[in-house]
Amino acid sequence: MARKLRIIRQKSRDDSGFGSNASGRFINKDGFSNVQRKGVNIFNRFSWYHTMLNLPSFRFISYLILGYVAINLVFALIYYLIGVEHLTGIDQSTPLNEFIDVFFFSSQTFTTVGYGRIAPVGFLASLVATFEAFLGLLAFAIATGLFYGRFSRPRAFLVFSKNALIAPYQDVTALMFRLAPFKNNALTDGEVILTAAIEINENGVPKSNFYRLNVELAKINSLSLNWTIVHKIDEDSPFFGFTKEDFQDPETDIEIMVQIRAFDEVFANTVVQKTSYINSEIIYGAKFIKMYESSDDHKTTILDLSKIDAYEKVNI
Amino acid sequence: MARKLRIIRQKSRDDSGFGSNASGRFINKDGFSNVQRKGVNIFNRFSWYHTMLNLPSFRFISYLILGYVAINLVFALIYYLIGVEHLTGIDQSTPLNEFIDVFFFSSQTFTTVGYGRIAPVGFLASLVATFEAFLGLLAFAIATGLFYGRFSRPRAFLVFSKNALIAPYQDVTALMFRLAPFKNNALTDGEVILTAAIEINENGVPKSNFYRLNVELAKINSLSLNWTIVHKIDEDSPFFGFTKEDFQDPETDIEIMVQIRAFDEVFANTVVQKTSYINSEIIYGAKFIKMYESSDDHKTTILDLSKIDAYEKVNI
Amino acid sequence: MARKLRIIRQKSRDDSGFGSNASGRFINKDGFSNVQRKGVNIFNRFSWYHTMLNLPSFRFISYLILGYVAINLVFALIYYLIGVEHLTGIDQSTPLNEFIDVFFFSSQTFTTVGYGRIAPVGFLASLVATFEAFLGLLAFAIATGLFYGRFSRPRAFLVFSKNALIAPYQDVTALMFRLAPFKNNALTDGEVILTAAIEINENGVPKSNFYRLNVELAKINSLSLNWTIVHKIDEDSPFFGFTKEDFQDPETDIEIMVQIRAFDEVFANTVVQKTSYINSEIIYGAKFIKMYESSDDHKTTILDLSKIDAYEKVNI
Amino acid sequence: MARKLRIIRQKSRDDSGFGSNASGRFINKDGFSNVQRKGVNIFNRFSWYHTMLNLPSFRFISYLILGYVAINLVFALIYYLIGVEHLTGIDQSTPLNEFIDVFFFSSQTFTTVGYGRIAPVGFLASLVATFEAFLGLLAFAIATGLFYGRFSRPRAFLVFSKNALIAPYQDVTALMFRLAPFKNNALTDGEVILTAAIEINENGVPKSNFYRLNVELAKINSLSLNWTIVHKIDEDSPFFGFTKEDFQDPETDIEIMVQIRAFDEVFANTVVQKTSYINSEIIYGAKFIKMYESSDDHKTTILDLSKIDAYEKVNI
Repeated sequence: MARKLRIIRQKSRDDSGFGSNASGRFINKDGFSNVQRKGVNIFNRFSWYHTMLNLPSFRFISYLILGYVAINLVFALIYYLIGVEHLTGIDQSTPLNEFIDVFFFSSQTFTTVGYGRIAPVGFLASLVATFEAFLGLLAFAIATGLFYGRFSRPRAFLVFSKNALIAPYQDVTALMFRLAPFKNNALTDGEVILTAAIEINENGVPKSNFYRLNVELAKINSLSLNWTIVHKIDEDSPFFGFTKEDFQDPETDIEIMVQIRAFDEVFANTVVQKTSYINSEIIYGAKFIKMYESSDDHKTTILDLSKIDAYEKVNI
Repeated sequence: MARKLRIIRQKSRDDSGFGSNASGRFINKDGFSNVQRKGVNIFNRFSWYHTMLNLPSFRFISYLILGYVAINLVFALIYYLIGVEHLTGIDQSTPLNEFIDVFFFSSQTFTTVGYGRIAPVGFLASLVATFEAFLGLLAFAIATGLFYGRFSRPRAFLVFSKNALIAPYQDVTALMFRLAPFKNNALTDGEVILTAAIEINENGVPKSNFYRLNVELAKINSLSLNWTIVHKIDEDSPFFGFTKEDFQDPETDIEIMVQIRAFDEVFANTVVQKTSYINSEIIYGAKFIKMYESSDDHKTTILDLSKIDAYEKVNI
Repeated sequence: MARKLRIIRQKSRDDSGFGSNASGRFINKDGFSNVQRKGVNIFNRFSWYHTMLNLPSFRFISYLILGYVAINLVFALIYYLIGVEHLTGIDQSTPLNEFIDVFFFSSQTFTTVGYGRIAPVGFLASLVATFEAFLGLLAFAIATGLFYGRFSRPRAFLVFSKNALIAPYQDVTALMFRLAPFKNNALTDGEVILTAAIEINENGVPKSNFYRLNVELAKINSLSLNWTIVHKIDEDSPFFGFTKEDFQDPETDIEIMVQIRAFDEVFANTVVQKTSYINSEIIYGAKFIKMYESSDDHKTTILDLSKIDAYEKVNI
Repeated sequence: MARKLRIIRQKSRDDSGFGSNASGRFINKDGFSNVQRKGVNIFNRFSWYHTMLNLPSFRFISYLILGYVAINLVFALIYYLIGVEHLTGIDQSTPLNEFIDVFFFSSQTFTTVGYGRIAPVGFLASLVATFEAFLGLLAFAIATGLFYGRFSRPRAFLVFSKNALIAPYQDVTALMFRLAPFKNNALTDGEVILTAAIEINENGVPKSNFYRLNVELAKINSLSLNWTIVHKIDEDSPFFGFTKEDFQDPETDIEIMVQIRAFDEVFANTVVQKTSYINSEIIYGAKFIKMYESSDDHKTTILDLSKIDAYEKVNI
């Protein structure tokens, strides 16, 4: 491999944002950079808003419910310590019943439902309730913002083929993968930026080089069907002359970093999605199977997303 | 027609986002792509947020009301099963009255109005009410987001002429259609991308070719009056040499795909609107009638949107 | 004037978005197009959201309060017609007192405050209250969206000089006006597009011609101080050779249309602001007085916005 | 220094947005322009929304709480003046207890918790409560908007090195500083604009000149690790020929103004961040110490943000 790499004519580029001494996969499959940060405290390291926006729905809802229960437990304890005699209508039969009732009083205050069957009468209990109702409203103001932020967050909703394939193309070969929008969003003006990272050993020290890859159809008018990204491996490609063995050499890290950018018409916003392919995800000698076809009545086109990964072997 | 098509000099473009084997109209009149997706489950196929944003207002409100009634019925049933003795102030005269009262208790909890005439006393009823009030607030947080998403969604509010016309233009002919903003929004920096799809039969197999069409005035500074998009049918046009019969041949699919992009000053956002014209919507030998005029006092200009489709026949 | 206009070398442009037969001022002083629309019904003609966003704050708040009172009056009437016996705690001493109490019950329901002193007991009253509380929450969901839409709406917050001046500049003259940001927002990457509309009489028919005007400094890095837009009246200008009389000829409509575009760093959004200058706002033989100066301690720069319109006469 | 400046070959640019007579630092360390405005009244000078968005979290929350207490005090006073006999359930033992109870009644109304233990009975008290509940909902509508505006505000979250360094670079020297994203946001397509302001004395009058500085790598694909901005001090640089003394001359103001622009993938928005370096922040003869390294298992890259300012002395 090293022999091959020594003959790459293209100059390594410095504008990838990754350094030549960085290591590991650069872009994770989900599109996030594979970089750890240290030297910042935890409050500054995370944007909690970015974090909440990226949480899966189920965990997001779970956190909201847990937060709700926790806050009510804390306030229930405070009311309990202040004394149930400062609340009307408490069932004082047992301490547990007392606690249950102050817990429900707390929740009725926090949600501002305020039935009034239990109500504060003393100064302290009233003061805490005043504060809790205020906090409740702020909490729901924040929750409203989070919900809106989550579902209004512009996303491309693209699915990528699991593998990149190397197939004959025109008179040479080409590396190709494909992607398709899987939701009822409407993307226009798609464009792709393709960067290859190749790690070579220079005198025993691993060093990453970065190359911009040419794409046959780097811009597309509308992202309605699948889009097959084709990088022709000709003399302008850093992979020119690479054999099957070169692509599969376990000692060499090849990574194809993909950045798709498009305009979503419903969000009226530019959306970006990233992914990458590493050695083990590149298949030498395969081509994709068509994933769309005319409907039987020839009135529309059917895109079969279950075929996104489908390929067949070809000889090179 | 096939004869004509064989003489189109322009190279078909691949960047339309539609494949040569796709069939049917590509862009529906409302601007959405005519593509069906399969192979994804229903949860992934739809972005429910995109769906809610595109619903007509009436259906959106109806869904909200139906959801409200349904949730209250479910909770009413739960309270009823728990037992009305765990709620104070229930009219226990008949089972129906009991159910009616728990239904209203549920709605008073869900909306957090909480009069307190009916209030939970037992553990179970209190617990359910605690959860329902929480759910109510989350539901209204989501509704707030949906309302805001719906009306803050940047849209171009353009109306297009129903037909594209072919009229004499300079020394040749031109295909033209027009559009106008119909609301009190303010659009600047309009631009149009015009693509033609022509389906020909190659050895009995239908195959679509795509051509970018030149536009006489492809960018406009301000979208205040109507904008007439003119594609001159000269040697650079794929339609060069087409006769009336060619345009009206029922066996050939011609589709003019239109994409308008502008900047909305109030939303401070780029907006995109699409539409298309197919054979039956192209009129050969017609020109538009002027749709704006000076006001009588010459102080302003009046745009008559009811004339957007108005044309008169001309000889070519 | 007509004589002068006949000698304008520049070709009139068609991309202004205004037609040559349009009349009156094209862009109002506030930046909106001076176009009236007809032929659309009132529901389609206005985007109520755009309208609410452009309302002055005072009127916006007034509308909210009026709406609140109106809704409560309507619901009070409904409760009154249903019968006050379906509400507990009503002061039944006089019909007026009854109505007052149902009005307040309505407001306590609509805002979901629900004290419970007055509460519904019958089926009908409960049903209406259920619906009113729901409506209340939706109304406040919409209000939340409107408030957020209003204050998050990206605006440039620029103030323009009342007049455009014509002053000696280099070896010729120049038309100039200035603008400055008046709020604590942060604008970068400003750019200006300047278009002149000149209406001439061709055989008794008024016809508007449009010209793009060159600007000495059409892009600016940061909009921190005032920005003086200078259009040099040289051979490339349509105003080349114009005399004071030409500019002041009441029979000719000259309009300088201004479009400023910049990036607001706090909103992280592109903002656009427009205005225009007509004959009567162009002063021949005047130049602006400096409107910023160093602070006394030379530590900062002071921009005096009250001087934005200040000019002094000069001879040309 | 003046001698040096007289030999700067580059033409001063006018598009910096700052005037040659402006004084003091132009861009503060936090990126805001160092300009004071006068001649506008206080309501117009501040965009309260921009102000609220830029407040530190702690002060923002404090303002909300203070506002809440203040509003309740005002309304408590109004209810007290109307007379506690118009409210049910008030503890009338002492005037203080009366006031405390009306205060809590106010808060229960403002937050719409409305227990009902205290409830209005007279016309006036009911009317005020009706208005207060309405105001409460509007206030929380505004708070919701502010919260959302605050956390959805697209920001770059970049940290800059405290100093700019001048170090040997290729065959000459270069001015360099670095920056890194410190949060879990994902920035792509970074670009930098670098402007130098140099104040010279022309016949005793200070005059600022502005120069655009070339950057070795002015665009970057992805902002994952640190980005070192390098301005080569060659013949195209205004600093060509500057000695250590020139850079440290206390009588000359040098300011390097930095503007970074990138695309945030989570916010799907362009973000801008600015800063500047003045004489005292430029260190002659120093270079940065590497701030990232491979993880021990070579699976990822670790960025140590605590080293952002770390440099070591070098000889020039």
